[in-house]
Amino acid sequence: MKGKRLFIQEVATRDGFQNEAQFVDTDAKIALVDRLSACGYAKIEVTSFTSPKAIPALRDAEAVMHGIQRRDGVIYTVLVPNIRGAERALSCGVDEVNLVMSVSESHNRTNLRMGREDSFAQLGDVISVVKQTKVAINVSLSTAMGCPMEGDVEQTEVLRWMARFAELGAHGVTLCDTTGMAYPSQVQQLCTDARNEFPELELTLHFHNTRGMALANTLAALEAGIDRFDSSLGGLGGCPYAPGATGNVCTEELVHMLELDGYNTGVHLAELLAASATLPTLIGHDVPSQLLKAGRRLDLHSMPCLSKDGLPEQRAFAERV
Amino acid sequence: MKGKRLFIQEVATRDGFQNEAQFVDTDAKIALVDRLSACGYAKIEVTSFTSPKAIPALRDAEAVMHGIQRRDGVIYTVLVPNIRGAERALSCGVDEVNLVMSVSESHNRTNLRMGREDSFAQLGDVISVVKQTKVAINVSLSTAMGCPMEGDVEQTEVLRWMARFAELGAHGVTLCDTTGMAYPSQVQQLCTDARNEFPELELTLHFHNTRGMALANTLAALEAGIDRFDSSLGGLGGCPYAPGATGNVCTEELVHMLELDGYNTGVHLAELLAASATLPTLIGHDVPSQLLKAGRRLDLHSMPCLSKDGLPEQRAFAERV
Repeated sequence: MKGKRLFIQEVATRDGFQNEAQFVDTDAKIALVDRLSACGYAKIEVTSFTSPKAIPALRDAEAVMHGIQRRDGVIYTVLVPNIRGAERALSCGVDEVNLVMSVSESHNRTNLRMGREDSFAQLGDVISVVKQTKVAINVSLSTAMGCPMEGDVEQTEVLRWMARFAELGAHGVTLCDTTGMAYPSQVQQLCTDARNEFPELELTLHFHNTRGMALANTLAALEAGIDRFDSSLGGLGGCPYAPGATGNVCTEELVHMLELDGYNTGVHLAELLAASATLPTLIGHDVPSQLLKAGRRLDLHSMPCLSKDGLPEQRAFAERV
Repeated sequence: MKGKRLFIQEVATRDGFQNEAQFVDTDAKIALVDRLSACGYAKIEVTSFTSPKAIPALRDAEAVMHGIQRRDGVIYTVLVPNIRGAERALSCGVDEVNLVMSVSESHNRTNLRMGREDSFAQLGDVISVVKQTKVAINVSLSTAMGCPMEGDVEQTEVLRWMARFAELGAHGVTLCDTTGMAYPSQVQQLCTDARNEFPELELTLHFHNTRGMALANTLAALEAGIDRFDSSLGGLGGCPYAPGATGNVCTEELVHMLELDGYNTGVHLAELLAASATLPTLIGHDVPSQLLKAGRRLDLHSMPCLSKDGLPEQRAFAERV
């Protein structure tokens, strides 16, 4: 397993910013994406071609896509809900469109205001259009590890929707733990079965850290052979069902752990941390990233001032275990 | 592995409260320990018999130990730094004393104001005294997975100190990731070797979530056969090297994950969450626990108000993945 190449896909400028009350200036979005392009990601989800009324935070999707400097080796993807969005995205020359629907009926109705079959028909139309181009098609299946309204989601349902989209010609599928309900043994089983049933699909895991399990779930997914992960700089993302809870798995924490465990993520952690440090100014508040506060594992500290006998002048941290 | 019995050891009233600026009233401490005693823990680290000047937050150690209602099946342990502390602890009829020193010289000097050999001699004296009683002896080895000043800590050094304390007659050893530097592959290797070399020692893992890896490290430890974990209600604990960072691994998040993964922790999660919800009032600030904000995985939400066609009146969360 050591040295295995993993693929890290950044979603902060889409899944993160869409969740923010404060509008991030178009120039700042462009500057951030350009900065992230130099960090070594496999893919960046730049923005979302949804209705500006529905998601005003991302109303500048065209301007951002046209403004960024695209770097060889990085796939620039965007979220697309319907034909209109797909046309807008294609006109910007995106590398991939990312379509979304929920595995659970309740969440699809809440999130997308239509039933799953209507979503499937609509996304099928999008796929028909995009298939006439060279643009790749990824489908994100929300609530694949649990629905905040229905609870458990049957694994057979997840596999059934994967099959339907594979049949239509999707290149990849992302299994999304939309509200942080996944747990390790569940992830390992689902990932194992999904890989076995759909070896031809590019499979991404998309975790949220809502209940603190995102990195543990990542280990479980790795165990099942998954090599592609969505994550969000600074841990941006949030969860509408859990005010104040953390968001998507934090990119710098993910990369930090994976590199320590000997994987090759391709991502430059120091540059990532520097980029993450700019987020609080952009969004107007602190970010969930613990690593940003604590620094990397080997960012060492100096000893306190020592007296002549080589001991600290004061008891610095009494009996800390 | 499923259904395996695990042993959860609560440290919030010691490792948590010692880190708090606001003094928690003695009566409140006693009430919290009594409440935790009913939650199903294997062990509770009640307090610390250190100098009241060094750790004023725990200056009421005797009063707390005398005040709590001890419950059959729960081991009540306390931190003890020296002979004086051991005598105080024994006079309160504790079940176990927990001794502490660091595997790294720099951290021992910073934390305990003496070199490791001096610590070892002092703890040896404590062990001699306690061995004359029926009280159990645990040794917590700080910085066993990394030192914030020296960086990497050699695994051979950890095993060497384990051997020295096993030789003196310690019943158990706790490997402490004092400042959250552990990572999963390291944990798995260290735990595997420690169990193989010292099968007779009761081995506990003590993680901090400083860099977000505590639950991932727990999975790695489980993989190596570890069945005993320290954790802190609400995630109290902090880290003096990372202001604002999270503290010890959060008990409710640990138990939540372990029970979902099919382990038997013996701990009642609902009662634990209710107890955790009382912490912000006691300590005067929010706690790191994400689970307290988000609720358990299957604490479900109702659908938003629906219109006649069964769809939400308003777009609740637009294109959430």
